[in-house]
Amino acid sequence: MRPEYERRHPVTGNAYAPMETARFTEIPTFLRTPLARDLQGLDIALVGLPYDGAVSNRPGARHGPRGVRDQSSMARSTHHVTKVNPFELCSIADVGDVPLTRSMDVMATIAEIESFYRRLSEAGVAPLTVGGDHSITYPILKGMRPSSPLALIHIDAHMDCWDVYMGSKYHHGSQVRRAIEAGLVAPDRTVMVGTRGPQNTPEGWEFVRRNAIRVVYIEDFVELNVSGTVDEILRVVGDSPAYVSFDVDALDPVYAPGTGTPEIGGLTTREAVGILRGLRGLDLVGAEITEVAPLLDQTGGTSLVGASLMFEMLCHLAESVTARRK
Amino acid sequence: MRPEYERRHPVTGNAYAPMETARFTEIPTFLRTPLARDLQGLDIALVGLPYDGAVSNRPGARHGPRGVRDQSSMARSTHHVTKVNPFELCSIADVGDVPLTRSMDVMATIAEIESFYRRLSEAGVAPLTVGGDHSITYPILKGMRPSSPLALIHIDAHMDCWDVYMGSKYHHGSQVRRAIEAGLVAPDRTVMVGTRGPQNTPEGWEFVRRNAIRVVYIEDFVELNVSGTVDEILRVVGDSPAYVSFDVDALDPVYAPGTGTPEIGGLTTREAVGILRGLRGLDLVGAEITEVAPLLDQTGGTSLVGASLMFEMLCHLAESVTARRK
Amino acid sequence: MRPEYERRHPVTGNAYAPMETARFTEIPTFLRTPLARDLQGLDIALVGLPYDGAVSNRPGARHGPRGVRDQSSMARSTHHVTKVNPFELCSIADVGDVPLTRSMDVMATIAEIESFYRRLSEAGVAPLTVGGDHSITYPILKGMRPSSPLALIHIDAHMDCWDVYMGSKYHHGSQVRRAIEAGLVAPDRTVMVGTRGPQNTPEGWEFVRRNAIRVVYIEDFVELNVSGTVDEILRVVGDSPAYVSFDVDALDPVYAPGTGTPEIGGLTTREAVGILRGLRGLDLVGAEITEVAPLLDQTGGTSLVGASLMFEMLCHLAESVTARRK
Amino acid sequence: MRPEYERRHPVTGNAYAPMETARFTEIPTFLRTPLARDLQGLDIALVGLPYDGAVSNRPGARHGPRGVRDQSSMARSTHHVTKVNPFELCSIADVGDVPLTRSMDVMATIAEIESFYRRLSEAGVAPLTVGGDHSITYPILKGMRPSSPLALIHIDAHMDCWDVYMGSKYHHGSQVRRAIEAGLVAPDRTVMVGTRGPQNTPEGWEFVRRNAIRVVYIEDFVELNVSGTVDEILRVVGDSPAYVSFDVDALDPVYAPGTGTPEIGGLTTREAVGILRGLRGLDLVGAEITEVAPLLDQTGGTSLVGASLMFEMLCHLAESVTARRK
Amino acid sequence: MRPEYERRHPVTGNAYAPMETARFTEIPTFLRTPLARDLQGLDIALVGLPYDGAVSNRPGARHGPRGVRDQSSMARSTHHVTKVNPFELCSIADVGDVPLTRSMDVMATIAEIESFYRRLSEAGVAPLTVGGDHSITYPILKGMRPSSPLALIHIDAHMDCWDVYMGSKYHHGSQVRRAIEAGLVAPDRTVMVGTRGPQNTPEGWEFVRRNAIRVVYIEDFVELNVSGTVDEILRVVGDSPAYVSFDVDALDPVYAPGTGTPEIGGLTTREAVGILRGLRGLDLVGAEITEVAPLLDQTGGTSLVGASLMFEMLCHLAESVTARRK
Amino acid sequence: MRPEYERRHPVTGNAYAPMETARFTEIPTFLRTPLARDLQGLDIALVGLPYDGAVSNRPGARHGPRGVRDQSSMARSTHHVTKVNPFELCSIADVGDVPLTRSMDVMATIAEIESFYRRLSEAGVAPLTVGGDHSITYPILKGMRPSSPLALIHIDAHMDCWDVYMGSKYHHGSQVRRAIEAGLVAPDRTVMVGTRGPQNTPEGWEFVRRNAIRVVYIEDFVELNVSGTVDEILRVVGDSPAYVSFDVDALDPVYAPGTGTPEIGGLTTREAVGILRGLRGLDLVGAEITEVAPLLDQTGGTSLVGASLMFEMLCHLAESVTARRK
Repeated sequence: MRPEYERRHPVTGNAYAPMETARFTEIPTFLRTPLARDLQGLDIALVGLPYDGAVSNRPGARHGPRGVRDQSSMARSTHHVTKVNPFELCSIADVGDVPLTRSMDVMATIAEIESFYRRLSEAGVAPLTVGGDHSITYPILKGMRPSSPLALIHIDAHMDCWDVYMGSKYHHGSQVRRAIEAGLVAPDRTVMVGTRGPQNTPEGWEFVRRNAIRVVYIEDFVELNVSGTVDEILRVVGDSPAYVSFDVDALDPVYAPGTGTPEIGGLTTREAVGILRGLRGLDLVGAEITEVAPLLDQTGGTSLVGASLMFEMLCHLAESVTARRK
Repeated sequence: MRPEYERRHPVTGNAYAPMETARFTEIPTFLRTPLARDLQGLDIALVGLPYDGAVSNRPGARHGPRGVRDQSSMARSTHHVTKVNPFELCSIADVGDVPLTRSMDVMATIAEIESFYRRLSEAGVAPLTVGGDHSITYPILKGMRPSSPLALIHIDAHMDCWDVYMGSKYHHGSQVRRAIEAGLVAPDRTVMVGTRGPQNTPEGWEFVRRNAIRVVYIEDFVELNVSGTVDEILRVVGDSPAYVSFDVDALDPVYAPGTGTPEIGGLTTREAVGILRGLRGLDLVGAEITEVAPLLDQTGGTSLVGASLMFEMLCHLAESVTARRK
Repeated sequence: MRPEYERRHPVTGNAYAPMETARFTEIPTFLRTPLARDLQGLDIALVGLPYDGAVSNRPGARHGPRGVRDQSSMARSTHHVTKVNPFELCSIADVGDVPLTRSMDVMATIAEIESFYRRLSEAGVAPLTVGGDHSITYPILKGMRPSSPLALIHIDAHMDCWDVYMGSKYHHGSQVRRAIEAGLVAPDRTVMVGTRGPQNTPEGWEFVRRNAIRVVYIEDFVELNVSGTVDEILRVVGDSPAYVSFDVDALDPVYAPGTGTPEIGGLTTREAVGILRGLRGLDLVGAEITEVAPLLDQTGGTSLVGASLMFEMLCHLAESVTARRK
Repeated sequence: MRPEYERRHPVTGNAYAPMETARFTEIPTFLRTPLARDLQGLDIALVGLPYDGAVSNRPGARHGPRGVRDQSSMARSTHHVTKVNPFELCSIADVGDVPLTRSMDVMATIAEIESFYRRLSEAGVAPLTVGGDHSITYPILKGMRPSSPLALIHIDAHMDCWDVYMGSKYHHGSQVRRAIEAGLVAPDRTVMVGTRGPQNTPEGWEFVRRNAIRVVYIEDFVELNVSGTVDEILRVVGDSPAYVSFDVDALDPVYAPGTGTPEIGGLTTREAVGILRGLRGLDLVGAEITEVAPLLDQTGGTSLVGASLMFEMLCHLAESVTARRK
Repeated sequence: MRPEYERRHPVTGNAYAPMETARFTEIPTFLRTPLARDLQGLDIALVGLPYDGAVSNRPGARHGPRGVRDQSSMARSTHHVTKVNPFELCSIADVGDVPLTRSMDVMATIAEIESFYRRLSEAGVAPLTVGGDHSITYPILKGMRPSSPLALIHIDAHMDCWDVYMGSKYHHGSQVRRAIEAGLVAPDRTVMVGTRGPQNTPEGWEFVRRNAIRVVYIEDFVELNVSGTVDEILRVVGDSPAYVSFDVDALDPVYAPGTGTPEIGGLTTREAVGILRGLRGLDLVGAEITEVAPLLDQTGGTSLVGASLMFEMLCHLAESVTARRK
Repeated sequence: MRPEYERRHPVTGNAYAPMETARFTEIPTFLRTPLARDLQGLDIALVGLPYDGAVSNRPGARHGPRGVRDQSSMARSTHHVTKVNPFELCSIADVGDVPLTRSMDVMATIAEIESFYRRLSEAGVAPLTVGGDHSITYPILKGMRPSSPLALIHIDAHMDCWDVYMGSKYHHGSQVRRAIEAGLVAPDRTVMVGTRGPQNTPEGWEFVRRNAIRVVYIEDFVELNVSGTVDEILRVVGDSPAYVSFDVDALDPVYAPGTGTPEIGGLTTREAVGILRGLRGLDLVGAEITEVAPLLDQTGGTSLVGASLMFEMLCHLAESVTARRK
């Protein structure tokens, strides 16, 4: 383990590794990483984005970063299948939360998020974000300013390709549409997994058809299974730089009850982990977990799922960063 | 969407569709349908049957209609696989709850339930009921007065073919036996799915064997899988008019903790949805969801499952009604 | 009981009183009142205002109307101390929710709320509202267009006299300030009860001092007790038309855990009821319960408290309306 | 401690006192007493009455004995104020549950309960019962066959003097009326404490007035306080043999959320304990705790309250039995 | 059913079978068996081991026996697939809890546990234990004093082959290592199922490799499925006397949230039951369920799972005992 | 606010005050204070002591520091009654958790705790600790090495003066006895508040009598009320340096359900705050909150109470430190 993952206790003066102390101790940072003081030498930033001002149903994702940080103390350093230790590959730190100062104003918040990620981007730091409602994808990608449209792996119960809802163009059901319209995401390198549920209008279905987005509905997933789904993702994404957007409502509500818009019949965590593991080798430029609403699941289970999936994605992101470094 | 699914706001006077407003608004009717004023022109009645006077273990299903109504606000109008919109096919309304006036008296309650469903039957309205404990099947079918014994698709952890228990012939573990004895259900066109769990007496096992009822135990289901199970159901039911009785304890307790007699190792919601979708094309005359006990699952999850399965069944029922209309 | 509190069952055709059926039956309207079809002849409107776009901490009050409607089925018609039956004094109905169409936009929402209450005001209907976060007081009072500034009885852990927060002037901690600035409320006829808790800035304390608002801090309440507090309220309000604004966080968190900004050491429900009963005889023009966030208290307890306090206020409002009618 | 409160471990053969082992060990009997094998030499029977077939709102009190037994492991042997150790004064045992065999039939159940308590009565054993819904008082008293009408101390949010409800004369809101009509209870030696809440009909109020029952409404209690209330109870009961009936809904819902018909503004446990302690010296012939519904309070808190109040009553009952023995 | 499974009611004197009464009645013993008075004639002891002094993360397994006893009232006597009734095959009783007197001292506790199981062993009684944290395996096996190293079927998310942690060699992550070192368990006849999760050190991975322990990681299980996994277990164990150790965290956290160290992506109960059923025919000498922490799952679900798996294991153990008897 | 309470955001580089950002943001330190890097210039250390190895009933207090840190984000800087801002008076920081390395060994843990507090003591830093079970008082006081026995204000449902329990002299019911025996605490300057509950042995009662400790039982408190109790405390403590030990089980279980040994009839938070405020002016040398077990209260309420009481004590401690500085 790298030196920066050790700490000197302020009272005893002894060196110790927070990542190895008992799970219920220490101030909870993401995956027990150090709190960054600046972006110097940082490869990957673990970011909290405590915002839920754009939800259409049950709010609460503003507490997502808190909940995931807390449960992420359960995480450990080395993946048991790949034996990857991301903390040995890269310099990784918790950079705290995006400092939102006007979170009752949707447009102002979009601007603040964009500005934050631009700084990360300018410093060459890859972001792994814990939301926050799913609307955050759009301003995050804007801030990342990709040189060409990114591939998007959108794992979610919903397609989030609707247009105006509740009077707003910018909500947690429209961010994919907005990102495509803005040229941030390439629809033909976009793949959706876990989509399901009735609709009141065909608007979203039409958007994905019109844009030739590959949608692996949950019914397709049952046919394709994990390996077939992974094949589809790899085929669609190709060698394009890719961004992974994981909405916890892709999971079945029993695995992630702490979320705002649950839909029955979703992914199990085992399936979700299987899909994420299949992404190894892709050229990831960033990732996010969204819609964890801890107060809707006071057992902490949804946050634990979020933290566990975060580790899976971090391993890949660390390998991608390492690969690009060469 | 039909005009009756619009409403004029009593204060603003503006027309609007309750089914399309934000999920947390409006008075909760089943699936956001209008409250019926009478049975005129109605095709399908969504009925609440708040009764749990015949349970052997944990009560609470009397709150089932409340819970399912509340969570059914999450529902939307068009099925994402079949693209069926039942509200365009049929006139569907919430007719409120069966008005029980003597619910501490099992026999009196049976009579009141029977009488209620007779009225629906006489008006040519097909019922989709949310219970209530599972004993309700017997008086519902009595009230429906089928011209010949119905096929029964009984999805449940238990066979409900016991005889006297706790001194009563009419409880939530005997209603299938009672319905068969009364000639309301044809045993050779009856199929059970999801059956499991130890027993104290072989009484139920003997009844199904004696009556040649097809039982797809959960162990059989694991072998047959969804498609094989559906094949079995279709084979047994044939083109007989059929009634679907779905006890939420058919599901594994993690999917439906809010029920009185949980048994581990049950169906997932994905499997349950798969089975229900396989029933498309059958000649359904009615359906029910039973044993949702919301106070035993304060997250609302079990009620959400109930509401979601209700929509699946409603799509079929609407198609059946439409087909019979021709 | 007035005829309009009876209903004819759509299936049986029998007349019955929803208010007298078993508590777990029927579609949940506020206090089991009929759903209004228009404002004709209505004296008091029970209004849901499902909005929490202006909270600074934990959201969830958007579900307040749902929760209170559900638990208000526990209510009954006649007060056991005063023997007042408000439903005999006045025509009272549930008018549904304020139809918000742009709830992610604070300013647009304020306009929609104002417009809604203006309609009620023009029809001569007194509003009893269930919020919603506490910011709603300001647009409600704007809509009511009082001919002169109203007396305000603000029962709340917080003074809600702050200015800009999180970039907005209009949030759930500033509405009293905004209402006073707009001339809707008379500061010298305003009394606050239950105020407590540390602050980061003296801004609120300075506003109330500057405006000579009478603040009965919880420490003062302990000295004055219920009767002394009631005396103070009556002294400050005098015979001015008055509006009662009850934030459930005035209560101790054990009585109202389902709220966004709990502060320990608050009122008991017995004390709160005592204070509300002391208001009998005041000239009330409207009232509200705010900040009930049912998903933060899945036992339903906070909603039950909200419904119970709602009934206490309704009795007074009905007497006030009756008195003004003469 | 008496020898019978020791046990010999079936495996180690060592003697030990279950009442003194760690709180989370051992099979949970009421207050860690031995399970009776017969009634030989027994002074006081701790009885479970798992029945809730007569409730009008939320069921669940059938699990009351289970819940209270579990939490009663927290109890200890000697009262910290009076220094009474009831287990030294009397022979006390858990006699298990009343074996109901027809609990879906109200009349049959009444007969079975009556018969059970008659046996206890014939054996000279005083009963301390954990219900069960409150309807049980009537058959218990019938079974006890008092030689003259008993004084009744009815601590409850409700008067339980209604007549027919939901088609039945025998429900958990009518048992006091039935007991008085049957001459089991003397109305002029009956006192009610904690009564509150609106009503739909004046039926109950009229019954208590007609029968000159002393009702200490919660509003009266606030005036009288604990000591004044105790004085009233002692005055009304005099030296008559008395029965204590404690419905946990007398407590405020925050102290006893696990009950079927909560009413806000009730007693605190400190007040309830104060009232119960004031009964010392009365000639108690039996007592009961009713309406504990553990599944409605999964924290165990309501059951802990039930167990704690049970111990308070047991101390008095043991002293009464001792006094009568002389 | 054998006579000893009947009881005579202490009050009515009637004989009845606790196993057949309503699920919410009676004092909860394991699977409704009688409480043993001594070990005379006993074949199988159901043992509670309320200890969690050796956990590294969340404690609470000390309440495991209580929780499982309570939920095991849901069990019934005859297996629905095999039709085995263990209570007809063997004499089975609840022998209460291991009486620990120094549970804050790890070494003293190990000695007390060992001594307890030695007594069972000397009496020829096979133990089926409900823990307690997983450290108990080591002292249990020590107490059983197998004549040669046992085969071990270790179903668990973790390998529990670590060495010193938090300053102790004896904790709930080291007991397999300790048992192998002590010659109680044969590593080449040991098989682990369900292993998963990242690690901070390779210590455990190295131990199993060095000792050639067969580890069926969850990823292997997905490949092998239930039947392939069962084949592996049978191959490794052969005809050796075997001990089954089931840690509920082998299950996915949604099936067993009430445990101290959850890891996502685990077994479903259906899979777990499938694996356990596959063990039929092995020569089992004992079994255990560990790490059920009921207070971390107040729904009772985890305890119900524990009780249900306990019954599955009991059926095999009863058949093994019967086979050895011949 | 002092400069050290500002932070520079690692990404934006902007200065901001964590104490003033939205309550759901930022990494949770105690009361939003900075994490200390060393003890330089520090006046008061906020310490977490995550240990529950010495509890006799329900464990879980090891998660106390986590829970209280999380909820303490609700705190603000200036007391609304005294207008004290402790952060202006003193340099206050979160020094993290006491790094326990052998927490399964009671004696080793005592030594580690003692050593930690000795460092603080040597650096002249006053400790405000969040436990952990109540056994921690003894090693904390040992580490503080008071020059003469301290006055002790012990607010707790229990006297914690027992001797050996479960084989250990050092548990969470004996630490006051141990501290007195060791000459760390002066019994004649010790006062206990809130004591209540039955006992199995008179051991504790005898110890306090023998040592002439002033015990304000809850029954005495009801007589004395807050002001009389405060008078007693001030009289007993006099001008001696004093330590405040607050066990959250002093509170009634409805205010602090998240604790291991609840006793009904305890303090309200309003009363507790009243008592604590009365301590102003005493010469406090340290304070602690113990027995907060967050997992036993998943609403967060008990932790919020703990955080709120912590702030009350911090204000006094800051004034004491300031006074001694002069």
